[in-house]
Amino acid sequence: MPTQYSIGLDYGTNSVRCLIVNVANGAEVAAAVWTYAHGTQGVVLARDPNLARQHPADYVKGAEVTIKQALATAKKTVKGFSPAQVIGIGVDTTGSTPLPVDKQGQPLVFQKKFANHPAALAWLWKDHTSVNEAAEITTLARKLRPQYLAKCGGTYSSEWFWSKLLHCLRTAPEVFNAAHAWVELADFVPASLTGTEHPSKFIAGVCAAGHKAMWNAKWGGYPDAQFLSKLNPKLAQLRARLTPRVHTIDRAVGRLTAAWAKRTGLTAGIPVAVGAFDCHLGAVGSGQARLRQHVQKQPVRRRVARGRNLLNTSKLADVPGLCGIVDGSVLPGYFGLEAGQSAVGDLFNWLVNYVQPGGGKAGSHEELTKGALKLQAGESGLLALDWNNGNRTILVDQRLTGLLVGQTLYTTPAEIYRALIEATAFGALTIINRFEEYGVKINQVVNCGGIADKSPLVMQIYADVTGRPMKVSRSAQTCALGSAIAAAVIAGAHKDYATAQKKMTGLKPTVYKPNAKAHATYKELYALYKQLHDAFGTQGGGGNLYRVMKKLIEVRSRMRK
Amino acid sequence: MPTQYSIGLDYGTNSVRCLIVNVANGAEVAAAVWTYAHGTQGVVLARDPNLARQHPADYVKGAEVTIKQALATAKKTVKGFSPAQVIGIGVDTTGSTPLPVDKQGQPLVFQKKFANHPAALAWLWKDHTSVNEAAEITTLARKLRPQYLAKCGGTYSSEWFWSKLLHCLRTAPEVFNAAHAWVELADFVPASLTGTEHPSKFIAGVCAAGHKAMWNAKWGGYPDAQFLSKLNPKLAQLRARLTPRVHTIDRAVGRLTAAWAKRTGLTAGIPVAVGAFDCHLGAVGSGQARLRQHVQKQPVRRRVARGRNLLNTSKLADVPGLCGIVDGSVLPGYFGLEAGQSAVGDLFNWLVNYVQPGGGKAGSHEELTKGALKLQAGESGLLALDWNNGNRTILVDQRLTGLLVGQTLYTTPAEIYRALIEATAFGALTIINRFEEYGVKINQVVNCGGIADKSPLVMQIYADVTGRPMKVSRSAQTCALGSAIAAAVIAGAHKDYATAQKKMTGLKPTVYKPNAKAHATYKELYALYKQLHDAFGTQGGGGNLYRVMKKLIEVRSRMRK
Repeated sequence: MPTQYSIGLDYGTNSVRCLIVNVANGAEVAAAVWTYAHGTQGVVLARDPNLARQHPADYVKGAEVTIKQALATAKKTVKGFSPAQVIGIGVDTTGSTPLPVDKQGQPLVFQKKFANHPAALAWLWKDHTSVNEAAEITTLARKLRPQYLAKCGGTYSSEWFWSKLLHCLRTAPEVFNAAHAWVELADFVPASLTGTEHPSKFIAGVCAAGHKAMWNAKWGGYPDAQFLSKLNPKLAQLRARLTPRVHTIDRAVGRLTAAWAKRTGLTAGIPVAVGAFDCHLGAVGSGQARLRQHVQKQPVRRRVARGRNLLNTSKLADVPGLCGIVDGSVLPGYFGLEAGQSAVGDLFNWLVNYVQPGGGKAGSHEELTKGALKLQAGESGLLALDWNNGNRTILVDQRLTGLLVGQTLYTTPAEIYRALIEATAFGALTIINRFEEYGVKINQVVNCGGIADKSPLVMQIYADVTGRPMKVSRSAQTCALGSAIAAAVIAGAHKDYATAQKKMTGLKPTVYKPNAKAHATYKELYALYKQLHDAFGTQGGGGNLYRVMKKLIEVRSRMRK
Repeated sequence: MPTQYSIGLDYGTNSVRCLIVNVANGAEVAAAVWTYAHGTQGVVLARDPNLARQHPADYVKGAEVTIKQALATAKKTVKGFSPAQVIGIGVDTTGSTPLPVDKQGQPLVFQKKFANHPAALAWLWKDHTSVNEAAEITTLARKLRPQYLAKCGGTYSSEWFWSKLLHCLRTAPEVFNAAHAWVELADFVPASLTGTEHPSKFIAGVCAAGHKAMWNAKWGGYPDAQFLSKLNPKLAQLRARLTPRVHTIDRAVGRLTAAWAKRTGLTAGIPVAVGAFDCHLGAVGSGQARLRQHVQKQPVRRRVARGRNLLNTSKLADVPGLCGIVDGSVLPGYFGLEAGQSAVGDLFNWLVNYVQPGGGKAGSHEELTKGALKLQAGESGLLALDWNNGNRTILVDQRLTGLLVGQTLYTTPAEIYRALIEATAFGALTIINRFEEYGVKINQVVNCGGIADKSPLVMQIYADVTGRPMKVSRSAQTCALGSAIAAAVIAGAHKDYATAQKKMTGLKPTVYKPNAKAHATYKELYALYKQLHDAFGTQGGGGNLYRVMKKLIEVRSRMRK
């Protein structure tokens, strides 16, 4: 039998990646990346810094461009490679990134009428325009449906599905009224590839639905119509038009259409797996089920998954501040526990791309890393909060902002860079501590994603701050690899995920071990971080500072109107 | 009679300036600036960011270089100008900037033995290595001599004379023991020019002695020997060697030596006035006595002076947090009330020179100003504390550091620049409020210094934040002009300061008036600033944040050892 390959399509915030993987051993034989054409690095921005949208045309074009290019590369580099050897496709994306669609399941923004309407675009995960709606949903659920909140950490976020829909309904009713339904990006792409966009065929993944849209089999799917009506009757009407078919990633949504086969050079009819969020499939790509018990850490957003076999479901506590506890959201048969930071890599990118320190010469990630490596823990006197994009876990509050303290007249960019890295490490430790407080012991941390792969500085700081060894997934494209594994499983190359992961994943030999001296210093600094965290982030934090960041945002919003 | 000129020598943090002024009308006919040769921009730094020293050789060379160059310029540009028309010299400097001298009054660092010893250099005003000693002096004075503290705001600062001496005694006893005396830069330069360095002739100004060394005629000069002995008996011994001749600026310390006349081209024997701090002579140069009642504001450091005729001395309250209330420190016959921020221009320079934002292209003061001008109050959502160099007034705490809050993933350098400007304005308002709380009404604010002259952005923000019109001194070199006025008075060109100021000073026609809308927004932001100020800067501020900045500095100091 000739070698078989599968494709993982990984839709990130700025670009889409296509990875071609040998299903027998996980070897990544070819890859291609395409940066979305619209907006700034693929993100449509506005004067309101809360707004972040994307154009669905980029999603469609991105699949074509990257698949073609990856196939071309494979043909050049792999002897005898033929696109016919690709047996399936898996898809992972950012989320919650919902977009309004028409009765045919096509993006509303594809219609001339809505071509220039920002509300008709996809609402990127980091769009925080729906802060008020999120608060309203949280308040209502707290009163009427506490069970909904218990499974998503106690607070419904402005990053999530219903907040965004309600905000659209209020601020752009013409778009909301014209939309037949809203679909998550993770579901939109597989539907496009398989021609199953039409509502009669459309399939949604449990990952997006469960973590972002309060879908739960226990209460019959999405939040009930009565509850949604209290927010707005139109939401209840929309609920009736959302697909009842919500599945885990062990099945296909359909088969690649002839049109897509022609566009890409792939074989028509190969299966496309149910889509899921990048970090959930990243957990798969890092070998999650094989390891059975670990923290799945991805520097941009962090998910924690734990085998149900180890923690009886009936005893699995609801963990306040988590982004969701969803049966089957990572792998069928396991509960996925998701936690995350709203910005990690984005925070470092902010310094490099927006502040552009060092007079242009010394302001690259590489140069700042060199400078930061020369510093010891605590040496700069700086301390930061990692909230430039709000706090997803454990405070679940998007109306929080960044903070830097300790500057002198001699503070350098490298010191600031290191302080931002440390801040994200302190944020990660806060999440780990929260899990453990609620009985979910974190025994192992596996890192994946670009930063884990490229930055020994970041990994060492994470080890030193958390006091835990940092392991790194073997693949540099763990999310895309996870998608390719899903493709391999649904195409029948492996009997189940456990087998596929055993064959196709692994860890790097390098393990970052905590340095005892640095860890001791970071313990002191973490106590200070926690003081800032509680003072600015919690009502009872003291100093009347809880309102400071929020009031600044209120003033900012007013002035930008 | 031919036109008469006087010279003002202005010793700043990075450079010295010589200004030649027509005594009849204040016209500034020539100027020259020389950046000190030693260290970074004239400041000798070390790994410890608290350390800031200067080499006295730069003070001597700076006088020669700038006087010669200014005279040469005047010869070229003023028809018939002759150096013989210069009738006197005045000197203003930074402070407290004390330096150790030998038995001849010569800087110890001029001796081979101490040529490379950092403790033998001049201890620049912003040297904060003496934090512990300042606390110790404050504690002892609070117990034994509360009257000492009452006149300097309730806290003795690490920036000041005795803190620095005590720190030298403890950390570099070989320097302290070798020093016959310590002299302030403001006194050192006039003594050098007149050959009165020898202790038998040496004269000190009341400005430096009164504001920085707790000198007060009421208690017989410097702090008494018994008090100093409790700190260290050697301080009491040193006290006995300090000059008993402490004068206001209405007299000369001596006459220009033949050697200096030869070096510069000036006439030997012209008088040199008693020296004073830059901002005190800046108050003179802005027309202080003529206006009788105003806030004298200089962006780098801010002094407030108020006529005694308007506020009876017996009723002048001790204002907590002030840097001193000293009879005659600005003008003879008036009380000088000094308050100040530890960094204003330095804070903006930190962003431009150390962070170097904007990739080198957009990171200049000019470009950042352009960007900041496009922003409205509150629009960035940022708020900063202006404490990168500690807080001189009203907290009098050098173990405070900078803070920036409100960053998003899109925060720009121009937004940060504006936030830093606003922070210094909030700091200024905090000082104004403190004056008024203690009965010193601030009716008028006159700004002087480079920023007032060059930055309408800063002036408008100050007007909008304080809700007060901002006036600007006519001269762009108000401190140097003040020195030249002192020179004119002691040379007999005018019968007194009031007359000299009437002739030689003025205001610019432009007055920055507060914008009502911006002021309303800044009122909201100031309330938030005050919350941060109190939380991080005061014991009772809540949130346990008072210790955060201090603890960070403790850790930093430990790690740098």
